[in-house]
Amino acid sequence: MLPKIGKYPFKAEAFRCNMLGYLPYQQMGNYMLDAADLHANERDFGMTYLMPRNLAWVLSRFSVEFTTMPRPAEPFTIETWVESTMRLFTSRNFRVTSGDHVCGYGRSVWAMIDTATRQPANILAVRDGEMTQWVDATIECPIDPPAKFRFTQQQRLVRTLETRFSDADINGHINSMRYIEHVLNLFNPEWHREHFVRRLDVSYMVESHCGDVLNFYLEESADAIGVRVTKNAAGTPDEADACRCRILI
Amino acid sequence: MLPKIGKYPFKAEAFRCNMLGYLPYQQMGNYMLDAADLHANERDFGMTYLMPRNLAWVLSRFSVEFTTMPRPAEPFTIETWVESTMRLFTSRNFRVTSGDHVCGYGRSVWAMIDTATRQPANILAVRDGEMTQWVDATIECPIDPPAKFRFTQQQRLVRTLETRFSDADINGHINSMRYIEHVLNLFNPEWHREHFVRRLDVSYMVESHCGDVLNFYLEESADAIGVRVTKNAAGTPDEADACRCRILI
Repeated sequence: MLPKIGKYPFKAEAFRCNMLGYLPYQQMGNYMLDAADLHANERDFGMTYLMPRNLAWVLSRFSVEFTTMPRPAEPFTIETWVESTMRLFTSRNFRVTSGDHVCGYGRSVWAMIDTATRQPANILAVRDGEMTQWVDATIECPIDPPAKFRFTQQQRLVRTLETRFSDADINGHINSMRYIEHVLNLFNPEWHREHFVRRLDVSYMVESHCGDVLNFYLEESADAIGVRVTKNAAGTPDEADACRCRILI
Repeated sequence: MLPKIGKYPFKAEAFRCNMLGYLPYQQMGNYMLDAADLHANERDFGMTYLMPRNLAWVLSRFSVEFTTMPRPAEPFTIETWVESTMRLFTSRNFRVTSGDHVCGYGRSVWAMIDTATRQPANILAVRDGEMTQWVDATIECPIDPPAKFRFTQQQRLVRTLETRFSDADINGHINSMRYIEHVLNLFNPEWHREHFVRRLDVSYMVESHCGDVLNFYLEESADAIGVRVTKNAAGTPDEADACRCRILI
């Protein structure tokens, strides 16, 4: 039997690093999603098993807390494991290391949906709940659980953009890490030079599609920055929450 | 002594593939730049050697021709070698394979600049021209040399965008593959579904920086699409050619 924890090697390719010389959160996040995908597929509850059964994992929460990010050409390792599994949600954690150094940790919450009806599916019904055998709640993930920014009426619209072909990923939806990229792009290089984002919390609500318009609302509190991202489906005036982020610096 | 040709394994990470289920040109291009970087560094004429000497490679031409692109989780190999080296330019070729199948080829032309003066530097003066020992003009690269689209007065402005933090790479300039991403984003998913871009030729002219505004001019001829990208440095009305692309479908 495979170990409960999966361990995957990656490398911070030079041309994926930002102008400050480190791998940005959206790139690290895509590597983390890849590690999750590999871990789940190797243990037979990944997309390879689910897709032919009209089931899919949907990312609901993604929280990351890093003290450093890999630099150009730096090899690093992503470890990932399942912390808990219930009927409607499962929690998966991450630890990212470079040599002996821990760069950061991640927590994610996933739902399962029926891809035909888009309705929630019962995770424990897959292979009679076999997924529970992979749960390990004893492995340490020393960062706070996913948290939300408390938005008030003070939020202000700071950007509107139309999503394009490269914003969508293999699922046909706007890639979950692209939201993070667009959110971090609300801040200019001088801001990034002065602030290293130490923690990001993202709650994903409704999926967007290529052509949808995204609106970014920003609000600052004493200790955090909140960004609410809404979408207008192509050609409609109706605004729905696509995701909400909390940024700690 | 190392072989003249360098061979590097990669994998088409699922979340870097597009909604049509294949690795897009801008992602493949970044892997190719990584392979170039590794090849040059291993042979002591890469950025690791050049940077402390105030020298840098600058991409001048990039042409790629692919029949297929790797699909999610597909491993592939990039081979790269130097085809010729002169005082002011060097040509580097690429071959991308997946198993026994050749996915495509690439040709690139690079100049060397003095990073202090931004003026061209003599490539053959580096280590007394040692780089010439790596040249191999016998390895086959069966695609046409870099070519240009012949623009007329018919070109029309189709998009203007302000570059953002994530558009710039470790050099502080707009990443050369980001131009390709923005150019391919001029076309919607339906267009991409109907057309596989079989060849791209890009000529890079002037570097852009984060905050610069890019203007995209499009023109179609009988057998190609041309996209001219100009930049306005932040806050200025002066327009300069950043790059020009030719697209063959």
